[in-house]
Amino acid sequence: MATASALDAKSLVLPDPLPLDSGQVLPNVRLAYETYGELAPDKSNAILIFHALSGDQHVASLHPITGKPGWWDRMVGPGKPIDTDRFHVICVNVIGGCMGSTGPASEGPGGRPWGMRFPVITIRDMVRAQVALLDALGIARLHAVIGGSMGGMLALSLAANFPGRTERVLAIATTARHSAQNIAFHEVGRQAVMADPNWREGDYYGAGKGPEKGLAVARMAAHITYLSEAGLTDKFGRRLQDRAAKSFGFDADFQIESYLRHQGIAFSDRFDANAYLYITRAMDYFDLAEEHGGRLADAFARSTARFCLVSFDTDWLYPTAESKHVVHALNAVAAPVSFVELSAPYGHDSFLLECPPLDRVIKGFLG
Amino acid sequence: MATASALDAKSLVLPDPLPLDSGQVLPNVRLAYETYGELAPDKSNAILIFHALSGDQHVASLHPITGKPGWWDRMVGPGKPIDTDRFHVICVNVIGGCMGSTGPASEGPGGRPWGMRFPVITIRDMVRAQVALLDALGIARLHAVIGGSMGGMLALSLAANFPGRTERVLAIATTARHSAQNIAFHEVGRQAVMADPNWREGDYYGAGKGPEKGLAVARMAAHITYLSEAGLTDKFGRRLQDRAAKSFGFDADFQIESYLRHQGIAFSDRFDANAYLYITRAMDYFDLAEEHGGRLADAFARSTARFCLVSFDTDWLYPTAESKHVVHALNAVAAPVSFVELSAPYGHDSFLLECPPLDRVIKGFLG
Repeated sequence: MATASALDAKSLVLPDPLPLDSGQVLPNVRLAYETYGELAPDKSNAILIFHALSGDQHVASLHPITGKPGWWDRMVGPGKPIDTDRFHVICVNVIGGCMGSTGPASEGPGGRPWGMRFPVITIRDMVRAQVALLDALGIARLHAVIGGSMGGMLALSLAANFPGRTERVLAIATTARHSAQNIAFHEVGRQAVMADPNWREGDYYGAGKGPEKGLAVARMAAHITYLSEAGLTDKFGRRLQDRAAKSFGFDADFQIESYLRHQGIAFSDRFDANAYLYITRAMDYFDLAEEHGGRLADAFARSTARFCLVSFDTDWLYPTAESKHVVHALNAVAAPVSFVELSAPYGHDSFLLECPPLDRVIKGFLG
Repeated sequence: MATASALDAKSLVLPDPLPLDSGQVLPNVRLAYETYGELAPDKSNAILIFHALSGDQHVASLHPITGKPGWWDRMVGPGKPIDTDRFHVICVNVIGGCMGSTGPASEGPGGRPWGMRFPVITIRDMVRAQVALLDALGIARLHAVIGGSMGGMLALSLAANFPGRTERVLAIATTARHSAQNIAFHEVGRQAVMADPNWREGDYYGAGKGPEKGLAVARMAAHITYLSEAGLTDKFGRRLQDRAAKSFGFDADFQIESYLRHQGIAFSDRFDANAYLYITRAMDYFDLAEEHGGRLADAFARSTARFCLVSFDTDWLYPTAESKHVVHALNAVAAPVSFVELSAPYGHDSFLLECPPLDRVIKGFLG
């Protein structure tokens, strides 16, 4: 059995083709994942962390492209809230992604990259792949699944669709369905990518330049939704960037402009544009109630897990009302659930930032 | 003196070059405008309406490109809240615009279109040009200035910078300064335009195709900010567009996607991309307090007008707090001001939509 150091990059090809919600079947599915901490001999101490849209499996290890610490390094490690001295933590790059798991940039039929021939996938498809990985690893029941944002959608989806596979479900800053506004912002991003002539209908691999500019615009628009208005005012306000006065031109006069441009460029340096299309599409398609006959409570009817929902008061992407909606559905089937709205200034991204109350909630819930 | 029918398109070249906040001087400034209703012999009944970012002078007359009714047709006309049986209503295309007033698409030095050689302008520059038009028309003092969104910024700017020129100032759904989040959304739009290779550094006039795709993406992102989350949910929710099930593709499955794409394309059919860059820049530069030594109250110290501020409870682009900020500044200089927050479901765009309480406020304030 794998007992891994944090820097031990792993991947596995699923033994069976993966059935998809679209009706298609995805062959030769490779899943790239990271693990942290020892798996107990009885395999009872595994925690599966699901990453968000722009995240990946490098939850607490250096990112191989940027060289930066993992995206939840502050949360996962020895003695940290998700304590790798006690738990065996697994994080898997989602299918459709671009960090080693099968996605649109992977080799497809005919030996060419899939590109837009890649099937449209869903959140449930992503979960199905990871459950197949758990099967391959011989892990029958997880101690917990944990995820924020899109990761929270995967956590809820696993609870609904594979109800016996986890004891605990921790869903942070998330929703059981994408709203019209959520879809709208993603559609802007997709159109920005597709408007870039270097996108070439998704067939840009090996073509030299890809749709980096379009992807950067997509990321800029999305990034605004991850931050609160008050947080932006506090962090940037109308302060100018490295200048004493406005330039009366179109340079990045304001710090917020410079920051957003940097976010856009940095993202397009590390992320595949087609993966962005496919993953945002999966999120927009997500509606857990719809999958279960239209009533969200029915999605959780067979669940045996304990749930914990966390929202942030300044999150306008997936506001507290969305978490409460899930809590009410869980209440309707008498599922054990705790819920807390945390106060944090930085909007949706608060789950990734310094927020000691979140640390305490997570540590406490994991027992 | 001009007494005009609604369909009488007018324009005038200012007799003098226009000094700009940048220090540059703009020569041969043409202003395209519309008027409605008769000007009284003593010229005391003129109302100047300022249009918003994507608006123009066709406030209550057919748009010459789209053939649609004017953008405030429901508000301006005989017997309407802004009653053209009583008032002489003037609306001027802002400089930097693309509906006949001098802007980046106009002929510049060397006989070629200005393009990005056009000077960066400010909200105050736009106002200065319109005050020069009033001078040319012999209108010393307006009955009122009225504007929503960017139009409200012009109204406040006129009150601050030309304090003797109006008796009443009606500023709707607006702000005295662009916030970091406001700037952020505009910067996304500008980057979307500039990322389009057909933009050609702004030198696309006569080049066949312009940056329509980039401009459409910019408009899509902006359009989301004009609507409330609840309004989007109410109007579109997760309803599918002309299909019974998701396509598992990248077509506009959802109504909100189809709607946004349409908004983007329709806008790029009627608006000049460079004008969009210049006008958004002017809005981002807008900070009425900064212009007046850093204290907003000082901006209004010399004003003799009566003010009315209106906000909408679901407007998250320029939320009620921004209007209150202006009201407090006016209070600090004992200026007569009334303020109302109206309840309307559709966010920022509520000022353009059916909202009977707004009609009553406007009618009442005009006396």
